[in-house]
Amino acid sequence: MIMLSQDAYPTRTQNNAGILARQDPVVYEHDSTHKPQLDEAQRASYQENGFLLMPELFNAEEVAYLFDAMQAMREDFTNTGRKEVIAELGNGAGSGEVRSIFNVHRLNEIFANLVRDPRVLNVAREILGSEVYIHQSRINYKPGFTGKEFYWHSDFETWHSEDGMPTMRALSCSILLTDNSESNGPLMLIPGSHHHYVSCMGETPDENYKKSLKKQEVGVPDQILLRYLADMGGIKSCAGKAGSVVFFDCNTMHGSNGNITPYPRSNVFFVYNSIANQLDAPKGGLEPRPEFVAAREGIAELTPQALAID
Amino acid sequence: MIMLSQDAYPTRTQNNAGILARQDPVVYEHDSTHKPQLDEAQRASYQENGFLLMPELFNAEEVAYLFDAMQAMREDFTNTGRKEVIAELGNGAGSGEVRSIFNVHRLNEIFANLVRDPRVLNVAREILGSEVYIHQSRINYKPGFTGKEFYWHSDFETWHSEDGMPTMRALSCSILLTDNSESNGPLMLIPGSHHHYVSCMGETPDENYKKSLKKQEVGVPDQILLRYLADMGGIKSCAGKAGSVVFFDCNTMHGSNGNITPYPRSNVFFVYNSIANQLDAPKGGLEPRPEFVAAREGIAELTPQALAID
Repeated sequence: MIMLSQDAYPTRTQNNAGILARQDPVVYEHDSTHKPQLDEAQRASYQENGFLLMPELFNAEEVAYLFDAMQAMREDFTNTGRKEVIAELGNGAGSGEVRSIFNVHRLNEIFANLVRDPRVLNVAREILGSEVYIHQSRINYKPGFTGKEFYWHSDFETWHSEDGMPTMRALSCSILLTDNSESNGPLMLIPGSHHHYVSCMGETPDENYKKSLKKQEVGVPDQILLRYLADMGGIKSCAGKAGSVVFFDCNTMHGSNGNITPYPRSNVFFVYNSIANQLDAPKGGLEPRPEFVAAREGIAELTPQALAID
Repeated sequence: MIMLSQDAYPTRTQNNAGILARQDPVVYEHDSTHKPQLDEAQRASYQENGFLLMPELFNAEEVAYLFDAMQAMREDFTNTGRKEVIAELGNGAGSGEVRSIFNVHRLNEIFANLVRDPRVLNVAREILGSEVYIHQSRINYKPGFTGKEFYWHSDFETWHSEDGMPTMRALSCSILLTDNSESNGPLMLIPGSHHHYVSCMGETPDENYKKSLKKQEVGVPDQILLRYLADMGGIKSCAGKAGSVVFFDCNTMHGSNGNITPYPRSNVFFVYNSIANQLDAPKGGLEPRPEFVAAREGIAELTPQALAID
């Protein structure tokens, strides 16, 4: 008799590459005493596709304020050697440029406030059916001319294996701070892919995050399975004006191409996790990733507070 | 008194980076005894924008025939060490894969016939106002998952400096052999950029083509000038069904992003040059590039002959 693994979402083992059905809800039951943020069609679309693009949720004045905060952070953090700053790989044009800054909701008061704005926070609470906290936050700069691609991945595959996130009860929120066209490397999502769990081959090395934040090498989905998901669901590019917001499920397969256009494709990115879905130990005896990548300390429910521009 | 260069299009020198007005026509006077292939609006659009996208000029049966020929060439030429085969750079996923095969109109009878098909040849004759020949031909494979970008460039800048092409009286013709979506690294063009000549800094090293066919490092336009051209003209992505054809002027600024989608973005690419615009010596005492990149031998006018499927 073969013993099945107790883990509903096995991955990063030698013989478990494959595809499994999702075991968790997508839209969780919502406390009906709260006024809903989304209408029925929006909830149904999120349930079916695994994402929701909300055009221009933030106005031009707010975008300018947030854009300035993002640029100031890049200036303050460049060449500081801080661990939260991830530089582009390689030795050609663009290498060494700031690719991402992590933990911005703790490092910067403006972004600390932004995660509490009801327009985003209440969507997360409603979809996840509970109070929430920030599992990870970052700015992705993707500069013009030299911006590099992010290869396809499910965030949950990494968060489950490397961070010990128990279930699919988290979502990502990407706030566009520059216009995203079809050409400047916008977020691409595979609609419907969140219903399927793609288990990846290969064991995770120690301190994998030091490489994977620049370029993912384990936790990379099989090409045949990617093709299968894309043939079924297509590929949706999230073009939109600055101030638009994309919410997407933690298990939606996504990535983005590089950017040779002159126009940067920058966004700020928050992961809301249900307070009922806090991290366990990572799988396979791995050391936990550092706090700036995966929050474990001082977890507290976020309370809504509208963004105020000074 | 400063002597101006006699060359209308100086480039690749230490002090000539900049932008100059085009000195040559875009649409040349056409011999009115030939029946025109393009209507007035198409000619005007090509004149203004520097390109013309003609949807599904080849039918599905022809596309399947050409696609098979392209795949067969890849199989025949992989690992042969032939100089016409250009592999992807790098040491990650996709490196070593076939990026392009050059000179396909001489190496393969099907592509030799294709360049004579009236639907493409007669457009070239009409726009260039003369008989034409093939300056260069190639297949660009851009595979799924790992396809690399082609950075912005004007073809004429290279052909003028490295091949000694006298004037802007050439055009490129790209026949899409797979569907090109917004997401799989389609050709991007800057409309109107063909009216301006971007002169590039940096001297050309010997045998530059051995590197530049993989990744261009000299003849790279200045970022500020690219931004200027894109701000004026925008960026047009040439998405279209397989069988569609893009004609574009030899001086239209173009490039393409990488391709992480599962869908290859393959095309066959011909450069028609006016018989009155044959190559001189390269600039700056460079050795001529090899025949498979820039034709000098046995130049003869192409005569129309419809593509026949066996």
